[in-house]
Amino acid sequence: MQLNDSSPSAVVLLSGGLDSVTTLAWAIDQGYACHTISFNYGQRHAAELSAAEHLSHELGALSHRIVNIDLAQMGGSALTDAGIPVPESQSIGIPLTYVPARNTVFLSYSLALAEVLQARHIFIGVNAVDYSGYPDCRPEFIAAFEYLANLATKAGVEGKTVKIHAPLQQLSKAEIVQIGMGLGVDFSKTVSCYQADDVGAACGVCDACRLRLEGFKQAVVADPTRYCGKNVTK
Amino acid sequence: MQLNDSSPSAVVLLSGGLDSVTTLAWAIDQGYACHTISFNYGQRHAAELSAAEHLSHELGALSHRIVNIDLAQMGGSALTDAGIPVPESQSIGIPLTYVPARNTVFLSYSLALAEVLQARHIFIGVNAVDYSGYPDCRPEFIAAFEYLANLATKAGVEGKTVKIHAPLQQLSKAEIVQIGMGLGVDFSKTVSCYQADDVGAACGVCDACRLRLEGFKQAVVADPTRYCGKNVTK
Repeated sequence: MQLNDSSPSAVVLLSGGLDSVTTLAWAIDQGYACHTISFNYGQRHAAELSAAEHLSHELGALSHRIVNIDLAQMGGSALTDAGIPVPESQSIGIPLTYVPARNTVFLSYSLALAEVLQARHIFIGVNAVDYSGYPDCRPEFIAAFEYLANLATKAGVEGKTVKIHAPLQQLSKAEIVQIGMGLGVDFSKTVSCYQADDVGAACGVCDACRLRLEGFKQAVVADPTRYCGKNVTK
Repeated sequence: MQLNDSSPSAVVLLSGGLDSVTTLAWAIDQGYACHTISFNYGQRHAAELSAAEHLSHELGALSHRIVNIDLAQMGGSALTDAGIPVPESQSIGIPLTYVPARNTVFLSYSLALAEVLQARHIFIGVNAVDYSGYPDCRPEFIAAFEYLANLATKAGVEGKTVKIHAPLQQLSKAEIVQIGMGLGVDFSKTVSCYQADDVGAACGVCDACRLRLEGFKQAVVADPTRYCGKNVTK
């Protein structure tokens, strides 16, 4: 959709993975003037940050920011603490890859950026079906953050509603793949793996890879992901 | 109060100003095992960060962390954007010193730290009476964050309640001064001013100085603040 002066501005959280990239493509298709934000939070690899920057531009976002935040100093997750290995089989309950309060921190920064840009829409690619057991991907969490956002900011005080959009919330990974394909997303450029190598090739065995592999299989779509096998040493 | 193995752990947001330092003294007096957290967010001076570190140790907190976060790159506030001067008279409505979504970002980090430390208490020195018109100091904002915190984290999923304490919420600045004095806080070491000089001497004219001056006057307590006059050049 062509942007014009009345296109609503939106902040889109963009990790560079399959879900967030599809969310961006969806928001752009719906006519939002999108500004993307990625977080360098001490994750084990930076390939997803490069993917995010590239895809933000390719899909037509108006700006892209990488915010450096230091969750790593707090530890407590296999994604940010080198002392905790990434699990290579399906987890029961909340997995070791859970990063404490990560989506709360990410959405808070997005809210700050939205306030500065006077954007009243924030998009996040969380998913309640294939959500890996993370508490901060649940619909009730997103609803609670939207409620908070409207109390936390100037816009809220002035009666302007801030809306948190999670368009993938009720979709399966297969449905997300199909929607992304329909919107022309080049999935070969997205990086989902928790322990991808420096060029973004995926391990094929972590939770994120497992969900992604299954998604392509169920969508009956050829999987364009580059896999480097299990012998990833990070 | 003497700490022991059953003392509940708490994370205390500590800016180094009068309110947050009194909050820390209050939490320690109530028997909490306190871990303090300060934020280097591109504010105009770092004197308050030094004050926070010193007072955390002096009052008996168990640990202190300074988290570097970059709100400055987003701009939009007189406290983080050199292009916006600090107002030197009382503001109407939400003032220029408001930092977009600041307390949301600060509380999110505190929640992450609480989760890693398995602390179920977070203390913040916000104040609804002398709150300078900031939307994220209001009681309804604090209540909304507490609700969010219990959905956002492992503790919440496991049925363990996270509590956000704002013990100064309904107090006047004069009452806060009196409580702090009773708890032995050395107010000469706290820094409240928005544009203090490098050694922490206050301008005496910004909103924060105005509220603090008035607080000491109404509490009928000698004001130990070091003032350097209006000729602050920052």
